Amino acid sequence: MLSEIAEQPVALERTLTECLPRIEALRKRLTSRPRMVVLVARGTSDNAAQFGRYLIEITTGIPVSLAAPSVTTVYHAELDWKDALVVGLSQSGESTDTNLCLESARARGAFTIGITNEAGSAMTRVVDELLLVRAGREKSVAATKTYTGQLMMMYLLAYALGAAIPLDGLRAVPAAASAALGVEDEVRSLAERYRYMERAVVIGRGLNYANAFEFALKLMETCYVVAERFSGADFAHGPIALVERNFPVFLFAAPGVTGDGAVKMVERLSGLQAETVVITSEARRGEIRLATQSVVLPNPPAGDPADLFSTIPFVIPGQLFAGLLAGHKGLDPDQPRTLSKVTKTV
Amino acid sequence: MLSEIAEQPVALERTLTECLPRIEALRKRLTSRPRMVVLVARGTSDNAAQFGRYLIEITTGIPVSLAAPSVTTVYHAELDWKDALVVGLSQSGESTDTNLCLESARARGAFTIGITNEAGSAMTRVVDELLLVRAGREKSVAATKTYTGQLMMMYLLAYALGAAIPLDGLRAVPAAASAALGVEDEVRSLAERYRYMERAVVIGRGLNYANAFEFALKLMETCYVVAERFSGADFAHGPIALVERNFPVFLFAAPGVTGDGAVKMVERLSGLQAETVVITSEARRGEIRLATQSVVLPNPPAGDPADLFSTIPFVIPGQLFAGLLAGHKGLDPDQPRTLSKVTKTV
Repeated sequence: MLSEIAEQPVALERTLTECLPRIEALRKRLTSRPRMVVLVARGTSDNAAQFGRYLIEITTGIPVSLAAPSVTTVYHAELDWKDALVVGLSQSGESTDTNLCLESARARGAFTIGITNEAGSAMTRVVDELLLVRAGREKSVAATKTYTGQLMMMYLLAYALGAAIPLDGLRAVPAAASAALGVEDEVRSLAERYRYMERAVVIGRGLNYANAFEFALKLMETCYVVAERFSGADFAHGPIALVERNFPVFLFAAPGVTGDGAVKMVERLSGLQAETVVITSEARRGEIRLATQSVVLPNPPAGDPADLFSTIPFVIPGQLFAGLLAGHKGLDPDQPRTLSKVTKTV
Repeated sequence: MLSEIAEQPVALERTLTECLPRIEALRKRLTSRPRMVVLVARGTSDNAAQFGRYLIEITTGIPVSLAAPSVTTVYHAELDWKDALVVGLSQSGESTDTNLCLESARARGAFTIGITNEAGSAMTRVVDELLLVRAGREKSVAATKTYTGQLMMMYLLAYALGAAIPLDGLRAVPAAASAALGVEDEVRSLAERYRYMERAVVIGRGLNYANAFEFALKLMETCYVVAERFSGADFAHGPIALVERNFPVFLFAAPGVTGDGAVKMVERLSGLQAETVVITSEARRGEIRLATQSVVLPNPPAGDPADLFSTIPFVIPGQLFAGLLAGHKGLDPDQPRTLSKVTKTV
């Protein structure tokens, strides 16, 4: 897991470079806007889809939905997919339910795109267009480089749909991921403090909401910590009652408006004497004095909105934290109990 | 909270009876199908929206999305809502972000519907059509009767959109809720066993997925239990690694295909020596022998799919469990720490 985390800058660079010509062609082909975009995925891929949901709505104005696969696979409902763009994400390309949804959507009038790490997988046979994440074979059961590869693909998909994603900024993301890896030693020593942590909450919002899901999933899979994930707003609507003295809350405080909310939440949690761990970047260093602990990255590439390019570098301290905490707990993050790499569900 | 749980059959009956004429008129008015339905809500209301998402897709075939309010309220994205039906749900009608989304959607071409318990609230001024949940004033911070009232409204909304919801079955739901209240004594003694529970997982799927969210939220709000909620399929994609000997997992095993999956999950969890607590109905009594504990309700009204009318009666043992466990823990479920009844977030 740790070596695959370290491969991310190279994998991102390769995915971007090799996919861009295909994306430019797709951008020309998708001249009529779809009436909606539907993203279909499970597990870590579903977290990448969660990012795509925000990114595509914010940058294109097209409404996006995350599919509920069981509506198709279990209830066999006949959804009206005319003029919809349906996009499946699966690391292995073998997720039965994702592929069934793609097949059904295509038969009912959708244009379908598959995003996978595996060129020869079953997914390739049920889509109109295939976008290959060039992350290289992922051996750890806990997905890391395929997650950030899928995030990169979401930027490219938004671009193909006409979004004004600045390609210069996007090209700077692999270097930002590389810089984020620089906190590894700091995170190793920080993680030791949480050796006996059994419960936690992870908060992110907007373009970092997906990272809250993904960080929490990594804590569950590799460290067996019961980690809840919330947007700051949903958290305030009930679950904040969980928080007592020393309760650990991890927050992503990105540049821009969503990060402002995270800073306010740190202040509120500080009043409750919670243990807050903030993942942020240089520009906010002065604002998070009330946090119990913090990991401060270099500022991400500039974008509009300000957190546009924060998602990939910001998840890396979370991935490192989960992998290193598993080590402190004496667990093997590559082979979590009960799990296998390809999960087939319907 | 316990007295409001007990009011649900009467509140449901009143909501159904008083709203039905308006719904019949709306059904006539909505002759051209919307291209999509978008549901906007926070907290418990968002859980009711989660139910609506499955119900409307399954019974009408219209794609449904749960809105990410921050796309509008924080990022100020200009979403294309032409020919969309945008429905806001808020107990108080005063949720700032829900109302902002409704206002923006209406200005951008959507037909908007508001569902609230409060006739004079701010929500009433930003929608084309108002549907009043007749639950009566809710005093407990932990919402119960407004949740089931909103579930009832989702059936009526699906009906207004042309779904073949059998009204006879729907009229039998308040009596089914009343029958579900009959397990109170049994749940009180069952809950005592979990007095020291600090972590749990709740699993539901399809038309009972929303109940997994809602039961988990009640456990968090009123008992301060860190309760994760998953669909059975997502759970198998990673979080199942959490489960060790005696780890408590609550499952909804409704009639029909989703319940078949829950029964299989109970068998798998039994192999992991987990503590499983199953909420089910008579027809499955013989299939859940491997569960550690169970609460068996009378069968819900018949429907197609088979779990169509299970959601309202099935959540009631969960509501009772949370309220009664709070009592065993010496907590006041009506006044959770840190929370107030109306939460204003953007």
